[in-house]
Amino acid sequence: MMFVKLTRGSTCKLACGFKFRSHNSSSKFRICQALSGDVTDSDIRIQGWVRSVRAQKEHLFLHVNDGSSLQPLQVVATSELDARGVTFGSAVDITGSLVKSPSKKQSVELHAKHIQVVGECSPVEFPFKIKERHSLEYLRQFPHLRCRTNIFGALLRLRSEASSAVHAFFKENNFVQIHTPVITSNDCEGAGELFQVEPAGRERTPDAGNQHFFSVPTFLTVSGQLHLEVMSGAFPAVYTFGPTFRAEKSQSRRHLAEFYMAEAEISFARSLQDLMAVMEGLFRATTEHILTCCAEDVALFHKYVAPGRREQVDHMLSKKFHVISYTEGIDILNRSSQRFSFPTEWGCDLQTEHEKYLVKHCGDVPLFVTDYPYDLKPFYARDNQDQPRRTVAAVDLLVPGVGELCGGSLREERLELLRTRLARAELEDTYGWYLELRKFGSVPHGGFGMGFERYLQCVLGVDNIKDVIPFARFSHSCPL
Amino acid sequence: MMFVKLTRGSTCKLACGFKFRSHNSSSKFRICQALSGDVTDSDIRIQGWVRSVRAQKEHLFLHVNDGSSLQPLQVVATSELDARGVTFGSAVDITGSLVKSPSKKQSVELHAKHIQVVGECSPVEFPFKIKERHSLEYLRQFPHLRCRTNIFGALLRLRSEASSAVHAFFKENNFVQIHTPVITSNDCEGAGELFQVEPAGRERTPDAGNQHFFSVPTFLTVSGQLHLEVMSGAFPAVYTFGPTFRAEKSQSRRHLAEFYMAEAEISFARSLQDLMAVMEGLFRATTEHILTCCAEDVALFHKYVAPGRREQVDHMLSKKFHVISYTEGIDILNRSSQRFSFPTEWGCDLQTEHEKYLVKHCGDVPLFVTDYPYDLKPFYARDNQDQPRRTVAAVDLLVPGVGELCGGSLREERLELLRTRLARAELEDTYGWYLELRKFGSVPHGGFGMGFERYLQCVLGVDNIKDVIPFARFSHSCPL
Repeated sequence: MMFVKLTRGSTCKLACGFKFRSHNSSSKFRICQALSGDVTDSDIRIQGWVRSVRAQKEHLFLHVNDGSSLQPLQVVATSELDARGVTFGSAVDITGSLVKSPSKKQSVELHAKHIQVVGECSPVEFPFKIKERHSLEYLRQFPHLRCRTNIFGALLRLRSEASSAVHAFFKENNFVQIHTPVITSNDCEGAGELFQVEPAGRERTPDAGNQHFFSVPTFLTVSGQLHLEVMSGAFPAVYTFGPTFRAEKSQSRRHLAEFYMAEAEISFARSLQDLMAVMEGLFRATTEHILTCCAEDVALFHKYVAPGRREQVDHMLSKKFHVISYTEGIDILNRSSQRFSFPTEWGCDLQTEHEKYLVKHCGDVPLFVTDYPYDLKPFYARDNQDQPRRTVAAVDLLVPGVGELCGGSLREERLELLRTRLARAELEDTYGWYLELRKFGSVPHGGFGMGFERYLQCVLGVDNIKDVIPFARFSHSCPL
Repeated sequence: MMFVKLTRGSTCKLACGFKFRSHNSSSKFRICQALSGDVTDSDIRIQGWVRSVRAQKEHLFLHVNDGSSLQPLQVVATSELDARGVTFGSAVDITGSLVKSPSKKQSVELHAKHIQVVGECSPVEFPFKIKERHSLEYLRQFPHLRCRTNIFGALLRLRSEASSAVHAFFKENNFVQIHTPVITSNDCEGAGELFQVEPAGRERTPDAGNQHFFSVPTFLTVSGQLHLEVMSGAFPAVYTFGPTFRAEKSQSRRHLAEFYMAEAEISFARSLQDLMAVMEGLFRATTEHILTCCAEDVALFHKYVAPGRREQVDHMLSKKFHVISYTEGIDILNRSSQRFSFPTEWGCDLQTEHEKYLVKHCGDVPLFVTDYPYDLKPFYARDNQDQPRRTVAAVDLLVPGVGELCGGSLREERLELLRTRLARAELEDTYGWYLELRKFGSVPHGGFGMGFERYLQCVLGVDNIKDVIPFARFSHSCPL
């Protein structure tokens, strides 16, 4: 029996090569290492969970997965070994020799010398069944256990790598990361659907001023934008990447009460092109990273969850993102033979049906829509001062399959214009600090936010947003 | 006038080399690039904020900072140029020639050809004054403006780099990043000081069951541990790095209502050594990274905020971290001639005065204290089953100047022991899902959390935790 050294294609770096060695005589390896051919020890030790058990004459064949890769390690045990308790879902600690596999299904296999069942698993009580392909909807019922399935394990590795790629993109482009606060006393979007925060066990008295823990009413942030804008007065470019919150009652496939946003703010930005370059760069860099580094996990989604999605993603990446103005968009909609449920007059907001039509019309590639009507966007959007149809320098990025992925704008940096707009909305006092940013060394700037779950939905082709986040929070649901 | 190409020592990669070029004829550079000597254009354009203005005979000398580095670029303008509005704090856009400086204070300077004041700044109204060194306490009054000072700019660059180093450490060691939820229906520590979450504008009725937005009462997380433990049933090692919350009334120098924690959980960990190796590795890797990559910014703190701290940090890094058991710690305290305000009997919790004494006693290096009394630690800590003094496999890391930096433990993975403990606390129903983790393929595991702000306090020598976070939230204070 010879020790084999094999090389495989692009293996994901993540979760391979744990540096902490066991105190046992055999060296401990992660399964992705054992599979990679990088292992030079003939006797090794692995630990993981049994994903399949098959008895055949004199041998027991196990597939053991430790989460370091999608692919399991095949373990072969002779009937002399004590394998009681080795069931689907059980945790095992196995030593043996890593040898070349006679089968074409895997390059190596582990010939077990010792199997220890670390944690048993009753096949009757365990909600997942051997060899059954459970639907994502079924898995959602078990938020504490679904990570133990191939598909959700793959999702979590992918999400981790995508998150890392987002940070890497901003770091490489020299953005300073700012931890914008979760608890805030302002409401960035200027409109409802906020969660309020008070110490537990205290009666809430909205107008009781100093009875609040923070002396003022406080909310969970809906966006880190205003806090990033603070930093735009001191840094060339900043970003934040963290949880944001909306108390939306809807249980849509695209909304969560707690979701992640990557938000960026760029100082001295004078045109929407400056923002679109960053948005497109972020989408491309992150996607190219996960397609390369998590090829196996991505392929699982594209095979079982969204057949045909890979081609769509490749198509998106092969083309330059398309740009149209809101006004052009409205023209396209009005020239179309399709009937829409919502009005398509200039001044009306684009609805999902409109967004989908425009994306398809423009060739099923990511589509920037720019320069929205002044009255549709929040107070901070920069006035284009055009006539007669007054617009602001705002831009949304729409993507196939999902719709709106990013929203951004240049911000109104001109003190008087901002003051007038805030005064009209009776927000001048609330946003006194925001006005002050424009008083002392104000600079043109702009930024955007990208919904991280929607991004994953788009690339992986996952229909329901609840299936791309470790623990989904939405109306009537917050287990654990 | 010759263009100079100089190389400087270890410059921070962060915030240098912005890739987006201006549409102007002169190439736009960040100031750190201009200072680095990497610039090969003789005519360049920079944008930033004026940090000093000095008029001298025929020339005006400006220091312009754009946040890409601590060091400003010296700009020299002749009296022929229009420099009206160029005041301390104003934003400027300057083109000129980058030349070797005749002064020893800087290697290069920019001879201005054109100066545009982008945003004015009234020296009278601006709360920061030219050439004045404002105290950190004074700056705290201006949370929306303090990033415009050298010291807080340095802090934010450092924090960004340290955050990036934390992620890099875990990624290099193949931990999967899990975005643990902020909103949760459980209380990890099993005791008060929680913030509750409900939609704004709704009366809170604590016992009204299905009237809650999520159908159950929900809180802001105090730790991602339990959610990471979910993942310990499927991955070799996981981590989370995000905001956590305590509704603590205290306004101490070490506590915030919203603070960041890096938390890790390691599957198949069988001893505290496995955890301590990761904690020590994280501290060292992060510290070595910022000392190297942000040398200038770190030096500013060690010069003006905490003289002598650098030597202490070097001392910490030069030694192996010390390890004692809680029981040894108690013995040391009882043998000491020092009088303590709090009791030092076996079974009592270690207070700050005790922690400080122990750290000093052990040579002013980071100190692990292990195996605490069973009754002092939460239900999830693994029972050592020792006699007669029953302890759990928990470990705290104490560091000079700060005290407790990390807390961790092996987790009780044995179903029956955990069930008994939860039943005794009448928590068996609440933590049904947590017990199930031990029912299906349970594995020994353990983890820890490191307070990120306390880490920064320790390395930079910052006395007050409010000065190491972009926006501090504490009792009676949540501006912006």
